[in-house]
Amino acid sequence: MKIGIIGTGIVGQTLGAKLAERGHAVMIGTRDVAKTLARTEPDAMGSPPFSVWTKQHPHIKLRTFAEAAAHGEVVINAASGSASIEALKIAGEANLRGKILMDLANSLDFSKGMPPTLSVCNTDSLGEQIQRAFPKARVVKTLNTVSAALMVNPHRLADGEHDLFVSGNDPEAKTQVTHYLKTWFGWKHVIDLGDITTARGAEMLLPIWLRLWGAFKTPNFNYKIVK
Amino acid sequence: MKIGIIGTGIVGQTLGAKLAERGHAVMIGTRDVAKTLARTEPDAMGSPPFSVWTKQHPHIKLRTFAEAAAHGEVVINAASGSASIEALKIAGEANLRGKILMDLANSLDFSKGMPPTLSVCNTDSLGEQIQRAFPKARVVKTLNTVSAALMVNPHRLADGEHDLFVSGNDPEAKTQVTHYLKTWFGWKHVIDLGDITTARGAEMLLPIWLRLWGAFKTPNFNYKIVK
Repeated sequence: MKIGIIGTGIVGQTLGAKLAERGHAVMIGTRDVAKTLARTEPDAMGSPPFSVWTKQHPHIKLRTFAEAAAHGEVVINAASGSASIEALKIAGEANLRGKILMDLANSLDFSKGMPPTLSVCNTDSLGEQIQRAFPKARVVKTLNTVSAALMVNPHRLADGEHDLFVSGNDPEAKTQVTHYLKTWFGWKHVIDLGDITTARGAEMLLPIWLRLWGAFKTPNFNYKIVK
Repeated sequence: MKIGIIGTGIVGQTLGAKLAERGHAVMIGTRDVAKTLARTEPDAMGSPPFSVWTKQHPHIKLRTFAEAAAHGEVVINAASGSASIEALKIAGEANLRGKILMDLANSLDFSKGMPPTLSVCNTDSLGEQIQRAFPKARVVKTLNTVSAALMVNPHRLADGEHDLFVSGNDPEAKTQVTHYLKTWFGWKHVIDLGDITTARGAEMLLPIWLRLWGAFKTPNFNYKIVK
């Protein structure tokens, strides 16, 4: 399957590598290809620059946001929360129209110190902002509640016995994304929260997630809803 | 032990009944005793009025906010989120000074329709507001993430294999509250999130909790953090 990923960070890299390993034709999009490849310093999280990663994954193409979005039968937003809307605008409404757009981003605001707060929450969400900005895209909010490593390998934790959420206005798109999550990555349990406004709840899991990360000293944990 | 409960709603009633059953001397506080006893209609959630409940629990005293707070060696805030600060002010700073104040409330705002939003979140929390308003009280945020029935009986769900959180600035108060949660109600797993600012994360679990309640059609569920 042709998959376009918006964003070259750790999330884009981790998903890209796993999806390519599964045999999918992955294209990662960035704002400025030459600039992304010219960076030689580790990123803010200490991850190696994309120029190093791309040498280990020569079969994954790096192109512009627009080319990656046009390439994808499914498009994955793996940009940072603050960059997402602009990156998707550059990718172009026409390249997203009618497609499933998996939104993985969290609107983290680092301007007020650590841990970050959210730049949108409670009465709105990033998922809703994206759906409003691209009304013809079939936005499904998911995967934003776990670390990149766990996104693509839920079995590394408790044999996969923990939960993921999907939010979106298009029931068929959510069914399809749930199928992708299960077949691409091995997720066992995916809870449909409801329409895209339920992304508020999923995004508002971040503040406690960040505190639990602080308490446990590892991001290798996840929520399970016990019924 | 002498326990003062602020609030006559379903949370105050459920905790009061369980604590009295455990042999504690429970006093429930309200703004106006005569008015509370005069109500004969079910509340907004369809629960019977306090006047009916109190007849089934004649050993639990109903007094003013101030009398209940003065009575308690530990004080429990079981008022609604919007009423909490005012109720505690009426209870009186002097009656809370030096005491553990367990804050169970959620700042639900029903004015924008259903499901409710939060009236405070992200950069502040109700727990912090209460700690700032009563700097000499030892505020511990807890129990706000589960239904009243589950608060006092965690074993009704998955043999108690799910998690509760505590947030607060006073480590000794959190240790004491954790002990209360285990011995009073049988909680097995209590996670210390950190200082009172971590109440933001615990309170921001409400939006997804409300959506899960909608999806499951029952409030009999809880979070478990899988590590």
